[in-house]
Amino acid sequence: MKKGLLMVFTGNGKGKTTSALGLAMRAAGHSMKVAFYQFIKGSWKYGEMEAMKRFSDLVDFQVLGRGFTWQSDDLEKDKALAKSAWEKAKEAIFSGKYHMVILDEFTYVLNYEMVDQDEVLTALKARPQGVHVVITGRNAPEALLNMADLVTEMKEIKHPYQKGIKAQKGVEF
Amino acid sequence: MKKGLLMVFTGNGKGKTTSALGLAMRAAGHSMKVAFYQFIKGSWKYGEMEAMKRFSDLVDFQVLGRGFTWQSDDLEKDKALAKSAWEKAKEAIFSGKYHMVILDEFTYVLNYEMVDQDEVLTALKARPQGVHVVITGRNAPEALLNMADLVTEMKEIKHPYQKGIKAQKGVEF
Repeated sequence: MKKGLLMVFTGNGKGKTTSALGLAMRAAGHSMKVAFYQFIKGSWKYGEMEAMKRFSDLVDFQVLGRGFTWQSDDLEKDKALAKSAWEKAKEAIFSGKYHMVILDEFTYVLNYEMVDQDEVLTALKARPQGVHVVITGRNAPEALLNMADLVTEMKEIKHPYQKGIKAQKGVEF
Repeated sequence: MKKGLLMVFTGNGKGKTTSALGLAMRAAGHSMKVAFYQFIKGSWKYGEMEAMKRFSDLVDFQVLGRGFTWQSDDLEKDKALAKSAWEKAKEAIFSGKYHMVILDEFTYVLNYEMVDQDEVLTALKARPQGVHVVITGRNAPEALLNMADLVTEMKEIKHPYQKGIKAQKGVEF
């Protein structure tokens, strides 16, 4: 079995999470098993949560995170939650159960130093053969980019917010 | 009903088609109807084709195109096929049956002047209320970008081909 790819979708534009969703689907289309963990929880019901139900035999989809930036009034509690979310992700990577593990919006956890970056990078590097890891989120740290096999920057050229158009069902969420 | 968004995913990086797939899924998660038309046909069986079967009640997924760049030894035949593919897409946009119409890799058709760009832009502008249109592909023409509500440039920062790693199942296809 070949070494799986470490893929990073970063940048300030739309398309990072949707790209990860598309990858999950494409993999599931090959009957590959996927773990899809969202590290940031929004306040709405995600369209993707409903859609993913149709892949419950192949995709383990879970929202592990809390509010939008992980910043609450209780930093220690946030850190503990982030750490346990990462432990779960790490377990999935090393479980032998998944061909692809997606850590959606994980860069926030790294950038806010909710988990130890070196420990994460060491674990990612040691991932078992045949396991693809996908990480999304803005401002991916340099060290992660250096280690990645594939990096796409989703660059915002134009966004409807600029025209005063509000988030729309089925597009933004 | 509000005016739907015109969204463009362009650039040379990975994530354009997968992003469109993710959007289709997110929309389907809201029980929205989606037409997903691929304007370029690859030689493999797409993972997404298998995955999309699970959404056959909501997503009309079709490969309308031919080989990789639409370039064959018969330009007139290519043009006729591109034109009929565009007619089908236009029909979907105006049918009242879909909340989202995705024209995957459509920029190639525009850039190779397989269809009349002005006619396409006029039709896109006249799209009915509540219909989102998503267009993907490299080198989206300036006039399309100007008209779009949302544009993300998927910029290749790093690609496994650079390291000599071959395309992998469930990731590239």
